Amino acid sequence: MRVGIGILGGGVVGGSLARRLLDDRAAIAEKTGLDLELIKVAIRDLERPRLFPSAYATNNLDEVVDDPDVALVVELMGGLEPAGSMVLRALMAGKPVVTANKELVAAQGPALFDAAASKGVSLLFEAAVGGGIPLIRPLTESLAGEKLTRVIGIVNGTTNYILTAMDEAGSRYGVALEEAQRLGFAEADPTADVGGGDAAAKATILAGLAFGVWVGSEGVYRQGIDGLDLRDLAFARQLGYVVKLLCMAESRPEGVSVRVHPTLVPRTHPLASIRGATNAVFLEGPAIGQLLFSGPGAGGEPTATAVLGDVIDAARELLAGAQVAPRILLGDRAVADFGLVPSRWYIRLEVSDAPGVLAAIAGVFGEEGVSIASVWQEGRGDEATLILITHEAEERAHIRAVVRLETLEVVKQVASTIRVLADES
Amino acid sequence: MRVGIGILGGGVVGGSLARRLLDDRAAIAEKTGLDLELIKVAIRDLERPRLFPSAYATNNLDEVVDDPDVALVVELMGGLEPAGSMVLRALMAGKPVVTANKELVAAQGPALFDAAASKGVSLLFEAAVGGGIPLIRPLTESLAGEKLTRVIGIVNGTTNYILTAMDEAGSRYGVALEEAQRLGFAEADPTADVGGGDAAAKATILAGLAFGVWVGSEGVYRQGIDGLDLRDLAFARQLGYVVKLLCMAESRPEGVSVRVHPTLVPRTHPLASIRGATNAVFLEGPAIGQLLFSGPGAGGEPTATAVLGDVIDAARELLAGAQVAPRILLGDRAVADFGLVPSRWYIRLEVSDAPGVLAAIAGVFGEEGVSIASVWQEGRGDEATLILITHEAEERAHIRAVVRLETLEVVKQVASTIRVLADES
Repeated sequence: MRVGIGILGGGVVGGSLARRLLDDRAAIAEKTGLDLELIKVAIRDLERPRLFPSAYATNNLDEVVDDPDVALVVELMGGLEPAGSMVLRALMAGKPVVTANKELVAAQGPALFDAAASKGVSLLFEAAVGGGIPLIRPLTESLAGEKLTRVIGIVNGTTNYILTAMDEAGSRYGVALEEAQRLGFAEADPTADVGGGDAAAKATILAGLAFGVWVGSEGVYRQGIDGLDLRDLAFARQLGYVVKLLCMAESRPEGVSVRVHPTLVPRTHPLASIRGATNAVFLEGPAIGQLLFSGPGAGGEPTATAVLGDVIDAARELLAGAQVAPRILLGDRAVADFGLVPSRWYIRLEVSDAPGVLAAIAGVFGEEGVSIASVWQEGRGDEATLILITHEAEERAHIRAVVRLETLEVVKQVASTIRVLADES
Repeated sequence: MRVGIGILGGGVVGGSLARRLLDDRAAIAEKTGLDLELIKVAIRDLERPRLFPSAYATNNLDEVVDDPDVALVVELMGGLEPAGSMVLRALMAGKPVVTANKELVAAQGPALFDAAASKGVSLLFEAAVGGGIPLIRPLTESLAGEKLTRVIGIVNGTTNYILTAMDEAGSRYGVALEEAQRLGFAEADPTADVGGGDAAAKATILAGLAFGVWVGSEGVYRQGIDGLDLRDLAFARQLGYVVKLLCMAESRPEGVSVRVHPTLVPRTHPLASIRGATNAVFLEGPAIGQLLFSGPGAGGEPTATAVLGDVIDAARELLAGAQVAPRILLGDRAVADFGLVPSRWYIRLEVSDAPGVLAAIAGVFGEEGVSIASVWQEGRGDEATLILITHEAEERAHIRAVVRLETLEVVKQVASTIRVLADES
């Protein structure tokens, strides 16, 4: 049972996939009963050396999508356009599509799901979140009967690599970033990674699958790691925490909250031990308790493996003549107002070491309804630093308290604020 | 689109499932588009209180399987019979079956898969391994394109609970077992758990899915934790290891090796941090590197969640009128001769502390081709203990060396031998 495959994009992932379709054709057929035949790969530059024979290459995207021998389209170009138009065209032609494009799925997911459903074909995107870690299928199938409460992930390998280097080697942010770039863990322009944009797209997808609400990257509260000070990582370490860039999606009575920000994670939490470029996703629900998935979040080979799993699934459906993969059903749940979401904060203050300082500071927090969990002083006299960790309180109460702290005479500077992972919701 | 569900077995898992089908019917319909209607639950004793209304109860298994309103059968009785006959009868009647019965799947998997395939219906068993952890779907679908090399799992919560208590609280085996029984983590008759039989059934299933070879529980080399001495856990701790009952399935040039035995795991390995009744499975392959899945390995609610995910999948297929879930295709790969499989050993010897002891012992290992990685002596004189850890060598060479050690005059006793986790294969 032959299925012709066309690939859009022949870079690291597309090249790996093309090579594996060619090299492993017999092995895949033996394991799955499917004969997957590579038909064409669309690439931008026909001159660059590739991982697959040039006979398969074309620089014309239409030629791949429109080829009658191509029954299934794999989109690995990335970016919104022309990827989005090509995916839509393939779906409207009744061809199932597999993509690893988190930016596209986050931005246009619901419209693309509708298009796929209208034609009765699948749009699969396992590789869009967590690279080689199977996440989409467990979320949409294995856990279809669970009312998940919270999804917490380390879904960006670049930032986790940088934060691990800062924590373990004591490297400053700029030094760690340069090393990550030198070793290929960060792009020349690292903005999308270090600014949290990449994680926000993935958070949109995870929240959509877990809670049926598509917030879009714009609806995600987002803070990157580019402003992090090594001193805060050192204080965090002394207090038993490690700083991670977490994406968090939470189902709350007032709605679904989706956010990406640096977070103090207790060293005893399973996510604290996720080092380097590894990704991990932690799922919580009343029936399943806590599940952890971890593995390689990026890289050509792991990502191509996830794409190939989707290709095999989509080919099975195509041959069965039925769409069985779960449709992504979106409900009408509200997105929670971020100001009302409870959080815990770590706050570092540069203060005058004078009598009554703590009383003044504690007074502000008390008036704003924020309760202080612990206080820790470093240094004396003019160089005194105060570290506070608060109990859970609404974001807006924290913000009001911090704004008021800055007006206190005894507070020289609110040097930094970082959120702290709250216990199980 | 209504699908009638019949359940065989109304205990902890069956009762949870029945209650959720009733309580969450509208929520499941909203999330999946499927109307799952509970028809009947077969239980042994109609008098015992249950988690669901007695109107659904019957003590006649046939009545559930043969009911024309029951389109999908869930088998949660456990054991080989009458579960096996009932599953087969449902499949032959063209009804998809979901089961959590690892014993049945391990023993009769291939025959049941054939029966399901002959009728074009699915036999799903996500809950049979790893309770609430999604494993079967990732293995058979997401990783369908990967040539896995090794699967290592902590798949029995009872033994991991006991080993954690021995390691952390320094409890002896018997004390830890009694505590586990008192808290409901171990059965009154713990044989299947502590003897490794439960883990062997799960190892059979994992190896079958990963490598296409069904060894059956009898084909699994099996050693339980009932013989473990607290002293060895203490020595292991001092040497940087923790003892875990691991199931391991490995694809080797000479065939597939499947085994269950206590294993020294380096404290830095992700499996070392899996505590208490938690389960975890670690997958290795050339493209994906290493993946870790962890979560609740047992318990009514987590297991019912996994079963419900399968029920939703099977109902989707039923309504689509097509079998899309991957068939389990078994190949003809050989099972490796256990004696030829390489392993590392920890060996504790009671010796006379006389000159030349180590030379005599090292001589035996050298002659059998086993290289010693480290030696550590505890105590002096008549009370001397020698701990050896070897490099990788064939099982049969280790066994020959240990048999010969027992004949040495300087060796009073080979007090214990435990295998050591080898690095990535």
